[in-house]
Amino acid sequence: MLHHYTLERLLEIVGGRRELVGAYEGVIQGIASLEDACAGDLSFLGNPKYRTKVRDSQASVLLVPEDFDETPSNGQLFIKLENPSYSLALICRDIEASLFPCPAAGIHPSALIEAGAEVSPEASIGAFCHIGAGAKVGAAVLESHVSIGRSATVGDESHLSPHVWVGDYCQIGRRNRLLAGCVIGSDGYGYEFFENAHQRVPQVGNVVTEDDVDIGANTTIDRARFGSTRIGAGTKIDNQVQIAHNVRVGRHCLIVAQVGISGSTELGDGVVVGGQAGIAGHLKVGSGAMVAGGTAVVSDIDPGSKVRGYPAMPMMLFNRMAVLQRKLPDLFKRFDQLEKTMKSPADKSDPPKQ
Amino acid sequence: MLHHYTLERLLEIVGGRRELVGAYEGVIQGIASLEDACAGDLSFLGNPKYRTKVRDSQASVLLVPEDFDETPSNGQLFIKLENPSYSLALICRDIEASLFPCPAAGIHPSALIEAGAEVSPEASIGAFCHIGAGAKVGAAVLESHVSIGRSATVGDESHLSPHVWVGDYCQIGRRNRLLAGCVIGSDGYGYEFFENAHQRVPQVGNVVTEDDVDIGANTTIDRARFGSTRIGAGTKIDNQVQIAHNVRVGRHCLIVAQVGISGSTELGDGVVVGGQAGIAGHLKVGSGAMVAGGTAVVSDIDPGSKVRGYPAMPMMLFNRMAVLQRKLPDLFKRFDQLEKTMKSPADKSDPPKQ
Amino acid sequence: MLHHYTLERLLEIVGGRRELVGAYEGVIQGIASLEDACAGDLSFLGNPKYRTKVRDSQASVLLVPEDFDETPSNGQLFIKLENPSYSLALICRDIEASLFPCPAAGIHPSALIEAGAEVSPEASIGAFCHIGAGAKVGAAVLESHVSIGRSATVGDESHLSPHVWVGDYCQIGRRNRLLAGCVIGSDGYGYEFFENAHQRVPQVGNVVTEDDVDIGANTTIDRARFGSTRIGAGTKIDNQVQIAHNVRVGRHCLIVAQVGISGSTELGDGVVVGGQAGIAGHLKVGSGAMVAGGTAVVSDIDPGSKVRGYPAMPMMLFNRMAVLQRKLPDLFKRFDQLEKTMKSPADKSDPPKQ
Repeated sequence: MLHHYTLERLLEIVGGRRELVGAYEGVIQGIASLEDACAGDLSFLGNPKYRTKVRDSQASVLLVPEDFDETPSNGQLFIKLENPSYSLALICRDIEASLFPCPAAGIHPSALIEAGAEVSPEASIGAFCHIGAGAKVGAAVLESHVSIGRSATVGDESHLSPHVWVGDYCQIGRRNRLLAGCVIGSDGYGYEFFENAHQRVPQVGNVVTEDDVDIGANTTIDRARFGSTRIGAGTKIDNQVQIAHNVRVGRHCLIVAQVGISGSTELGDGVVVGGQAGIAGHLKVGSGAMVAGGTAVVSDIDPGSKVRGYPAMPMMLFNRMAVLQRKLPDLFKRFDQLEKTMKSPADKSDPPKQ
Repeated sequence: MLHHYTLERLLEIVGGRRELVGAYEGVIQGIASLEDACAGDLSFLGNPKYRTKVRDSQASVLLVPEDFDETPSNGQLFIKLENPSYSLALICRDIEASLFPCPAAGIHPSALIEAGAEVSPEASIGAFCHIGAGAKVGAAVLESHVSIGRSATVGDESHLSPHVWVGDYCQIGRRNRLLAGCVIGSDGYGYEFFENAHQRVPQVGNVVTEDDVDIGANTTIDRARFGSTRIGAGTKIDNQVQIAHNVRVGRHCLIVAQVGISGSTELGDGVVVGGQAGIAGHLKVGSGAMVAGGTAVVSDIDPGSKVRGYPAMPMMLFNRMAVLQRKLPDLFKRFDQLEKTMKSPADKSDPPKQ
Repeated sequence: MLHHYTLERLLEIVGGRRELVGAYEGVIQGIASLEDACAGDLSFLGNPKYRTKVRDSQASVLLVPEDFDETPSNGQLFIKLENPSYSLALICRDIEASLFPCPAAGIHPSALIEAGAEVSPEASIGAFCHIGAGAKVGAAVLESHVSIGRSATVGDESHLSPHVWVGDYCQIGRRNRLLAGCVIGSDGYGYEFFENAHQRVPQVGNVVTEDDVDIGANTTIDRARFGSTRIGAGTKIDNQVQIAHNVRVGRHCLIVAQVGISGSTELGDGVVVGGQAGIAGHLKVGSGAMVAGGTAVVSDIDPGSKVRGYPAMPMMLFNRMAVLQRKLPDLFKRFDQLEKTMKSPADKSDPPKQ
């Protein structure tokens, strides 16, 4: 994916204080890591531990920290900056705006808006979208094949990727990003066994996402039994996460891919849950807690604590245990030996061999 | 999500024997847990362990058990009932019927029915649905963007949420609920390595779901290599479950979110599999077995047994082991100490210090 | 799913050297395992360990190895072949071609091709497909509801099942099979925390799949922060796999269902990753390595090595440890006993009881 920049434009984006060392005459054609960059590419030294990789990099232009004092090779330009990572982010934001321009407002001729739905004239509604009766869509972008249920709402500046479904009565906040294929507001999983069968418990609640929530591709969030399954403002959810009915996730949480959170569990603010972790139902995970990837949480977690393991335990204890676990074969051997020594009467009575 | 009830209507739904204590004059505007309820809400005491929460609840109307003898606060009404949970379910069922009314029969003008497909005149086919040649759809509800493959069948009273795909030749029973984005009948994952590449093994079977099966959002069930991948009557599958080719799931099983079941494995009747558990291929899990969440099953499981762990072991053993595991650091320390004591000749010969 | 063959047609497909023992006069109506087959079915003995099951099989025609010397029952035919499994694959391939015929070239009248997109006249574009501006689609098959982003490309002979999304600028190679609901090129999950909120890091890269790649149902592959998330030629990915931004997967890898691979991790060639395994970010997994199902990889893996566990360890060590773990309760008991013996002064001074 090429993107062409002149050096002038690049410096304009970066702005502020900078120092140029060396020279590159051509156009900048792409961005790549130090290792992958070819001639014509822009690269950057974000993490000091990669300093030695700069020398071998084929990049033509490099963003480096102010205290980086190596010399560029012939035809190579170093741009010395206070914070190369931040400058790179500014450039990427510029590329993004150009590669993924905000689509024009308007409703694609193939989209269907049911009677009684309200769509903002500033909204962009893509091909084959379906908006149910009573739904309200703000100044949002809906890409192709998005389906909005009856009486659901989508806030201003939200962006819904293809094949997203927002179920009936669900409420999506402002500036949400719903990635492709995510399912918001499907039936909670609740059954009671009687008359020799699992009888479905009615699920009459909804899902509410506050402002600035991101929801990953193919993630599923179930509507509440009653009341709301709720995702707090600023929380970012990765792909293929499962959030069950009546869960409440606090503000500014990070929930990494393939995590599962069972019914009615509550996460405080700023909780971080690593990939593939599972959290059982009806638990409380305190604000600021960190749950390591793959952990199985089966009891409440204190605010600010770090847990890991199956089942979860304090991370320090897990790490210690993981080391010792590998020494089990050795321990068993040593123990057998010791037991033998103890049980042998000879060992007790004989003098040490000389 | 508000829902308005008069007290008269509420009592009509609840029916049967009940006793009213206290009084509430207004309209009932919502349902919430004891903790979350506001004035105007209905709440309930289902589990005796929450008895103490009744006193602080702001709910205006509370369903309580017959033996609950506390006094309602001013303007609060207690409805004493034999089984408050059951009464609540009746109310929720009434709300559900009102919030999610069964759509009228008929084919949305944007839907496409290919030549040779048969659709019941009682079916409701939503926007942008596509029904392949030779498919047969009974008196079912298909929401928007549903795709039915060639020669597939969907039984009466089944409900398919948006973005569901039922693959060619697959058979969906009666009263099934297929939640949004689930994929029924994709290719089984089978390859043979020859000529330096993984060659796809043809997958010419299908998926058959019996009656009263529920399948969760974004769940995937692969069609068989030949014959059928089969889901037994009354089985309820949660979101993001993966069921591989030629698996056979018995009747009335519960399979919780993010479970994976590998090829050709058979589950008996009434099996419960907890969230994120994985079951390897070509195994038998006996009827009534319980597999705890996160468990990795790598060998057959006896009927009625309970297993947990990675890899699976009897649940009692796992629970014991999980406790002891945390004591490993201590055990290693004690052991080192003991070994030292044993090996030191001084300890053996010297008299205890005085 | 019935499929009718005459014996003549069957022998034509199988070809080569074969010997017929016994006789069956009817039509062959289906294929089933030895256990499941009914009268009229074809079955086969692929694995010698199932030899004894042949006697009880109700199949009318059986493919058996040349050295199989039992006698067919009345009305049953044995076809003796060098490699029954291979012959069966030939038959299944014939069935597949007949059950799943390649759809005719052409664009379904309901599909939408935006201005500036190029679609091969040999392509088959299904109902409700949407192809974005600047996209290039070769002689591929797109089933219903497929969405191709702006400037994305799809190679010749690729097959995209319903509800697939290929994001803007992504490149799908030749002979790829993208199963239903998979999401190629959604936003990578990257945030930086400043000004009291998680700020999204722009993701301006794409996803590139080389030739002969299969991608499972509801699998998600994120586009790179910059550069490309890349899947090597011949790699086969199962359902519900999550591949994060900037991951590079080598050639001819097998990645089984529900695996998660975190950002920037690199897999060599021929790597096999078992179901539900997770691989942390910024790691290298060497060529030919095998990661067992459910494993949590948190450090680099040497080429050709086999690992298992949480966290990963050499498979031999894990297997040993898994056995010993179950003996922990016993070890603790023995240890307590031993310690007691040691600490008791009586034990030290008293002579053994006579």
